[in-house]
Amino acid sequence: MTTTITLEGADQRSPGVTAPEGFRASGVTAGLKASGRPDLALVVNDGPLQVGAAVFTTNRVVGHPVTWSRQAVADGVVSAVVLNSGGANVCTGPEGFLDVHRTAETVGAALGVSPGDVVVCSTGLIGERLPIETLLAGVEPARDALSTTGGPAAATAIMTTDTVAKTADMTVPGDDGVWHVGGMAKGAGMLAPGLATMLCVITTDAVVDAATADAALRTATRQTFDRVDSDGCMSTSDTVVLLASGASGVAPDPAAFAAAVTAVAAQLARQLVADAEGATHDIAITVAGAQTQDAALAVARAVSRSNLFKAAIYGNDPNWGRILASVGTVPEEVAAFDPAELDVSINGVMICRAGGAHAPRTDVRLAGQREVHVLVDLHAGDEVVTLWTNDLTHAYVTENSEYST
Amino acid sequence: MTTTITLEGADQRSPGVTAPEGFRASGVTAGLKASGRPDLALVVNDGPLQVGAAVFTTNRVVGHPVTWSRQAVADGVVSAVVLNSGGANVCTGPEGFLDVHRTAETVGAALGVSPGDVVVCSTGLIGERLPIETLLAGVEPARDALSTTGGPAAATAIMTTDTVAKTADMTVPGDDGVWHVGGMAKGAGMLAPGLATMLCVITTDAVVDAATADAALRTATRQTFDRVDSDGCMSTSDTVVLLASGASGVAPDPAAFAAAVTAVAAQLARQLVADAEGATHDIAITVAGAQTQDAALAVARAVSRSNLFKAAIYGNDPNWGRILASVGTVPEEVAAFDPAELDVSINGVMICRAGGAHAPRTDVRLAGQREVHVLVDLHAGDEVVTLWTNDLTHAYVTENSEYST
Repeated sequence: MTTTITLEGADQRSPGVTAPEGFRASGVTAGLKASGRPDLALVVNDGPLQVGAAVFTTNRVVGHPVTWSRQAVADGVVSAVVLNSGGANVCTGPEGFLDVHRTAETVGAALGVSPGDVVVCSTGLIGERLPIETLLAGVEPARDALSTTGGPAAATAIMTTDTVAKTADMTVPGDDGVWHVGGMAKGAGMLAPGLATMLCVITTDAVVDAATADAALRTATRQTFDRVDSDGCMSTSDTVVLLASGASGVAPDPAAFAAAVTAVAAQLARQLVADAEGATHDIAITVAGAQTQDAALAVARAVSRSNLFKAAIYGNDPNWGRILASVGTVPEEVAAFDPAELDVSINGVMICRAGGAHAPRTDVRLAGQREVHVLVDLHAGDEVVTLWTNDLTHAYVTENSEYST
Repeated sequence: MTTTITLEGADQRSPGVTAPEGFRASGVTAGLKASGRPDLALVVNDGPLQVGAAVFTTNRVVGHPVTWSRQAVADGVVSAVVLNSGGANVCTGPEGFLDVHRTAETVGAALGVSPGDVVVCSTGLIGERLPIETLLAGVEPARDALSTTGGPAAATAIMTTDTVAKTADMTVPGDDGVWHVGGMAKGAGMLAPGLATMLCVITTDAVVDAATADAALRTATRQTFDRVDSDGCMSTSDTVVLLASGASGVAPDPAAFAAAVTAVAAQLARQLVADAEGATHDIAITVAGAQTQDAALAVARAVSRSNLFKAAIYGNDPNWGRILASVGTVPEEVAAFDPAELDVSINGVMICRAGGAHAPRTDVRLAGQREVHVLVDLHAGDEVVTLWTNDLTHAYVTENSEYST
């Protein structure tokens, strides 16, 4: 049985990407957002190593920054990440790709690094070109603002509909010395697997090579961001980048390294869920008794995508019938279970046992509980997976019907 | 290239299941609903033929009535259908199955037919037992109310959150004489394929055998109910029954028969969409230029399940970026297309051409238009499919968070 990572809340004042040694970051207002809020962030790896790895959306319609950045990380070397809110640069034609190219060149020149080692991330409305001159004019001020305490400023500059900046960090005391992992993320809607978040940068001062970094990042995202499914909608821009500076001089065991990256990613993922658009409940759907992890995940995902279930939770209604109805949509070849053996608990109360009503609905307390824990036991094996989602609320509909994002 | 059936509105005063010769129907108040509204319906086939066919939900968690009715139609003989609202009899344990059995026996005795030829359909809340004595006490009054003009009364008695009764009929003038197809349906939520509707009864006085009836019904449901995806939620109770009395004495060509059944099913499916919970727009998503029907359907379904897209339409925002983002989630092995060649039109305005912005968003008129037509051209083949869905509204959230259904 594989243990599932628990997503825990994190201190919002974490230094984030500048927690590890060897990194500087900044967040400035270039003028891309009508609101005048910060909209351009830089994260720079001062080394000595310049190791980079990244995982991207599996959407076939991707932003030009994703196309660029896939190339940029291909050799395992990343010197800097530039991120902007105020425009996703997706479906913007060949000009949009040139805009990314110019951004990387401008950042490269400002920092004295190769444009090919600059990852570019953009988030905002799809289908409209960025005001590229405005963005480029912001690069020098962003470079000048770089600081070893700039993590929170960078995390603020990448917010779109987020209500809070999302940062996390971890200090790992090893036998050979202390090393760190830090991170920041943005994303409040269009959160669905492959990946769950729009943009995330994780940094570390551990000494790791590109292969170790890549493996750790894939392990981490599979267990964290890929297990957040806020609204079933997959973004065209999702990017998670891991940068390693090696500045601690400590080369941790690959498993310990992956665990630390996973822990920081889990904290960021949990913050994404907590800030999901319009949500009033964060819902952890745990599927136990599955034959495989994939089976458990498929069942959890089916439940997380049921608008009827999510609306019921919004109404504080422990409507387990809607849970069973969604569990039942998973094909037999994907997840083995006998519908007559399904148990469902909500917040610790087993309201459905062996496919039928058990404890009274009124025993389940939902009102006033931000966290809701749903446990579905398939009684078909030993695997357990937890997926996080949110309730479906009036505010979600308002936010996504009144504004183009 | 296969032509897609257009779902057109139908006269709400259609006699429905009693349009064909050889059928009687009724709808009465047994007392299952707290509201005191009609909640028990009977449809009786007076022959001379008693041919029956049915298609059921593909959900693995099914109501006891589905389990019973699968057996009842297995021999191709159906004498009557009894339908109740006020309780779905799903996940109600072994007692729930006995309740269905007793219902069929009571109806069989009242009508003088075999219980094994009685199809039972129930709709309402999952997980609570029906007040079975109340239901059984309603069978004799329902039998006494049977009439050759009872179609509308039966259609009214099966309503749950439906705001209007749904009936349709068709008269087919053949070379050998006139024959008819009629039908009724209920369903306003949990509308998703396999099948789209909760309950539907279609009748005909054509002379057909069980195999022809079954083939025609499968053709019809595949092109109609399976192409409605209101909220992505599959029911545990979906049942579509076709009864043939042969009373017209006309044995139509199987293709003509399937076409007529499809036309009536299409009218009912369109009525389901028009009455979907809380909807302000009915959205027809047409995917053209696909290599296969399945590919087109997969793309249309991905769009229909995007809460972000559906909320945007509610806000009268022609947010084509959200359409492309959902199209891009369809795997390459399921639907071939080049993201750089995608065109999107909304209500006749091509706002996205070759994967990028084209006509201005402001050219698209959505406000005040109940019907919204989205056309996605994949430029990969000649197949076209239309799927119907609805917008995601505050009223949907209200209806599904404030009431257990």
